[in-house]
Order: sequence, then C-alpha cells, then structure tokens
Amino acid sequence: MNTKIILRNRPNQTVTQDNFECIDADIEPLRSGQVLVLNQWLSLDPYVRGRMTERKSYAPSMALGDVVMGEGIGIVIDSQSDQFKTGDKVIGMLGWQTHAVMNCSAIKLIPEIPFSETWPLGAAGMPGITAWIGMIDICKPKAGETILVTSAAGSVGSVAGQLAKLQGAHIIGIAGPEEKCAYVQDALNFDYCLSYQHCNWLSNFNKYAPNGIDGLFENVGGTLFDSLTPQMNPYSRIAICGLIAEGLEEQLHSINLRTLLANRMLIQGFIVSDHVARWREIQKQLIDLIAEQKIQVYEKITENLQNAPQTLIDLLEGRCLGKQIIKLS
Amino acid sequence: MNTKIILRNRPNQTVTQDNFECIDADIEPLRSGQVLVLNQWLSLDPYVRGRMTERKSYAPSMALGDVVMGEGIGIVIDSQSDQFKTGDKVIGMLGWQTHAVMNCSAIKLIPEIPFSETWPLGAAGMPGITAWIGMIDICKPKAGETILVTSAAGSVGSVAGQLAKLQGAHIIGIAGPEEKCAYVQDALNFDYCLSYQHCNWLSNFNKYAPNGIDGLFENVGGTLFDSLTPQMNPYSRIAICGLIAEGLEEQLHSINLRTLLANRMLIQGFIVSDHVARWREIQKQLIDLIAEQKIQVYEKITENLQNAPQTLIDLLEGRCLGKQIIKLS
Repeated sequence: MNTKIILRNRPNQTVTQDNFECIDADIEPLRSGQVLVLNQWLSLDPYVRGRMTERKSYAPSMALGDVVMGEGIGIVIDSQSDQFKTGDKVIGMLGWQTHAVMNCSAIKLIPEIPFSETWPLGAAGMPGITAWIGMIDICKPKAGETILVTSAAGSVGSVAGQLAKLQGAHIIGIAGPEEKCAYVQDALNFDYCLSYQHCNWLSNFNKYAPNGIDGLFENVGGTLFDSLTPQMNPYSRIAICGLIAEGLEEQLHSINLRTLLANRMLIQGFIVSDHVARWREIQKQLIDLIAEQKIQVYEKITENLQNAPQTLIDLLEGRCLGKQIIKLS
Repeated sequence: MNTKIILRNRPNQTVTQDNFECIDADIEPLRSGQVLVLNQWLSLDPYVRGRMTERKSYAPSMALGDVVMGEGIGIVIDSQSDQFKTGDKVIGMLGWQTHAVMNCSAIKLIPEIPFSETWPLGAAGMPGITAWIGMIDICKPKAGETILVTSAAGSVGSVAGQLAKLQGAHIIGIAGPEEKCAYVQDALNFDYCLSYQHCNWLSNFNKYAPNGIDGLFENVGGTLFDSLTPQMNPYSRIAICGLIAEGLEEQLHSINLRTLLANRMLIQGFIVSDHVARWREIQKQLIDLIAEQKIQVYEKITENLQNAPQTLIDLLEGRCLGKQIIKLS
C-alpha cells in the first residue's frame, strides 16, 4: 500500500489543510525501466506553493488529484531497470508519499556525503545550489562589500549569506521573529540579522549598513523589496530568487530607471533548474564546505507524512527555521 | 582669440538657446605639459543634457560659465609637452570652442582610420563603443532572436542594431518620424523600423515581432519603455543605455518581479566610461567593420560653432538623423 497526499483543491490566497487529502492506494506494478522506491526523507520547499495554482509560470502547475510534488531521498526496493538495484539510495521528485514508482531517468544515486544523507535535499542540494547561483554568479560579493539576504533563516538564504561571508563581505540578514534573527546572527555567522517585524528596522538597517547595499539576494519581494532598493549602491546587483511575500497577486514595484542607469545596477531573475549542467560541480564544492564546517546547516526533521501540509503552511507563513524535512521511514 | 560657448544658465525643462552664450576670450599661455589644440570637429551627444543640470549623477555637472563640454578632434598648434608635437591630430574633451588648452593626459592621438577622420567621434568612438558594450556584452544577441533598439536612428542605436544584425538576429528599430524609420530600414539594414508617432505602432510591432523581444537596447525610457517590457521573452535582456525621453523628472516604471523571475530576465544599466580598459580593442573591431562596410555610418556635418546649441536642441528633441558633428575649422 502507498500512502500519499494529493492536491484536493487549489488555495485562494493562503494555503490551508483543506487543500490537501491523504489517501491510501495500491502500488502499480513496475514497467520496464521503472523502480519502486521506499521514500525516507521528503523535502518541503516554498516553490510548491507556485505549483498549487494554475498560472503561466516557468513550470507547469500540479493537476487536481496529483500527488503533491516534492524532492525526496529513498531506497530502491524493487527494480525493473538495469541502472538501479535493490538497496540503492536515490534522490528525485518522489512526491508526498511513502512509496514512489519512478522512471529510472527521473532519479539519481545520491552523491557520496561524509555525514548526513539529508544534505542533498538542502544545503548540498537544490536550495544550496540555488544560493550558489544567486550569490556567487549574480550578486558576486567582494571583500568589504555589504551584502543583504532576505529570508536569511531559510534553506536558501542561510547558505547564500554564508557563501558571501566566505568571500569576505559584510553580511546582513533580514528575517521575521527575533529567535530566527538570533539564530542567523549567532549560528550562521551573519554580521547582523534584523527583524522586519520591528517598526524601527529600517533605521536599524541604516545603522548596520551605513555604506548602503552592494548585493541583494531577494527571497521575499513585496514591500520589503521596495524598502531596500533605495539603499542600493553604484554597481550593485540584485538577484531575484523568490517572492514568498507576494502570494498570488500581481504585485508591481516601482523602479527609477535614471537611478538604475546612473548606478549601473543589475537586476536578474534566475531559476536553479536552468543550471543542471553545473549541478554536480557546485554540489561537490558545497559538500566540502559543509564538511569543513565553513557552512553551517540546520535541518528541522519532522516525523510522519501527515505533518507535511502543516509544515508547508508554517514554512510559507514564516514560522520555520532552516531546512524542513519530513522523515517518512 | 578663442571663441567659446559657455553655459549661461541651467535649463528648466527643455534646453533653449538662452541657456548658452558665445564669447571671445584670450588664449591663456601654455604651462608645462600642456598643448594648444585648434579644434576641427566637435561631437554633439545627448549626455550633455544631463551635465547641464545640477543633480546627483554618475558625473559632475558643468558649472555656470564653463565652456560646454563635448568631445572633439583637433590639431596641435603649440606644445609644451614631450608627448605631443605641432601637427599631431588628437581627440579629447575639447569643448564647444575653437581652441583648447589641454593637459597632455587629457588627449590622445586619433587612431589610424582608413577613411573619415571623424569616425572616432561616432561609430568608431564613444557612441560606437557604447553600442558594443550594451549590445554585445549585455543584450548578447543570438541568431534568430528578436532584438529591439529604441532611438534606432541615433549615433548609438544605429550601431547597436547593426551589431546585432551581424550576429544573425532579427532587428527591429523604433524611431520618431517616418523618414528616420525609412533610413534605419533601408540604409542600416534593420529588418523593420517602426515610428512610435503612429497611433497603431504597438499593433504593428506585434506583427513584426510575433515571437516577442529577446533583447532590448534602451535609449529612450518614458512610456515607450513601459509599452515594450510586457513583450519581453523568457531569458530576455534589457540594457539601459539612455533615457532621452525622461528629461529631469523622477520617472518611475512599474516592474512585475514575478514576471521578471519566471522569465529569468536581466535588466542592466551601464555607462561606457566604466569600460576604458577595453576601449582600444573594441574600437579596432569597429573600425574594421566600418571599413568593410559591415556597419554603415551616417554623419551629419554642420559648419560653424554658433550652430552647436540649436543642433543639440534638435538632437534632444528627436529631429536629428545619425551622428551630429560641427565642423569648426
């Protein structure tokens, strides 16, 4: 039997438990080239929100009744493929379920990891590689520059800021509650982390970033973005990675092209899936940095598939710290 | 005697003849390291508008009473420098005047040019190099892509479009009057050039660019920019080179970050003076392309320094075609 969580209906504004349904179903027999995976670890990520809604985007929406999408790690327990054998540890879009029938082209062996096997779902996987592309390739931090990371306590922002710190930049994080900010500052070695929930955060910001912002790694959007852009310096770079605050509405932001031109600013949207060719090379560097403890990783592991909807809701509403993983077996 | 045009007062909105004054003055004696240049060719460029106004920008404003700034070519007629001798042809910011006393560090010998010696003021000089940086480095046109150039008949836009055409892209220009559009299409080999003065220009645009825009070389700004950005394709690039339509006001433009992210768009402001290290290398390539007639050049030469103010006014108001040069001697 496979236990799975499907998309029952689409959210209006915010995601609710009602959007999901847990059902049990028989496991289909394997066809040639397929394997059966016993799912062990399920990653929860903000991009799932976008796929729950029907709209034109860079990736197709989920259909109603589909298993909710999510990356996972599992163990092959039956194989009709020459590429994988029983006992192999694999990673892929296994979904919110206990078992996955996968085409062999859609999974990979997990890389050699010195410590935790869950890293390839977080700091050494999609979120970490996202942080790398946005920070190293687009924000290009240099020693002495001031780099700002929004949603600094999240799985992407936490790695992005630490990567910039390793380049010698002055790193300021923005996060919600005080306990997240304390964590970002103390455990992740950001120079400061400010809570946007404080009414005086922007004047604090000017205190901690008196020289303006040279690079902005943007995970949030909304009014936070509009507060930050006037602080951008000449030759500054903005990497648009995510817009977790923007929900469904078409939100418009004002930019002053004269300032953008006079400051030679760069704004670049990016999506990690465009960079698959560099995946392994970047992943290897991230694994080394984590193993050497140059990048600190915080994973919050929750047991039981049934907790996936609430964990996603908490993640979208800013109540989570670090990488959210569900332990399935 | 030196005849010079000075900045008498600053323009309110539009530049008028009243902002300038022509005066005669004695030529100061040369100090060590200086040369006296007899100015022969004066370049008129839109950036002069920005320097006439006091505001924070990438370059300082002119002071009242200053000789109006402008690049020129002239001949050394007296020298107190080991670097230059009488008879040398030099280029530099000689200004709106018949004679210039220049420090030798502020001028250069003009490069070897197979045909017209005025090219280093236009297609093989600052405007051409501006076109190169914005088009080749930022817009990065590929064969089969649709590239759009605003102010296509100007000294920068005309070269930018032809550079993209040489890469095999489909090139659409935007310009004002019909005769400019005809020139851009017929003489400069753009695939189409549309007049934004026609009320149906945007529907024509959709006819000529049915696949959207992959690269936008922006010289204009204003409402034209806002009409074009919704046509930008996934992975498209916008190079912000100039904003001739925006005058003095702080003009804000709406951008949808969700679209920018989903389309992985890039917006980059740039200023050619940041790229002095590459100047000679790019200039050499431009001279070769012009000499081989792969880039067509149109220079409008007007006699007499007294015509400089009106020519600048015409240039700013969109009444000029090609590179505007004043012949001084």
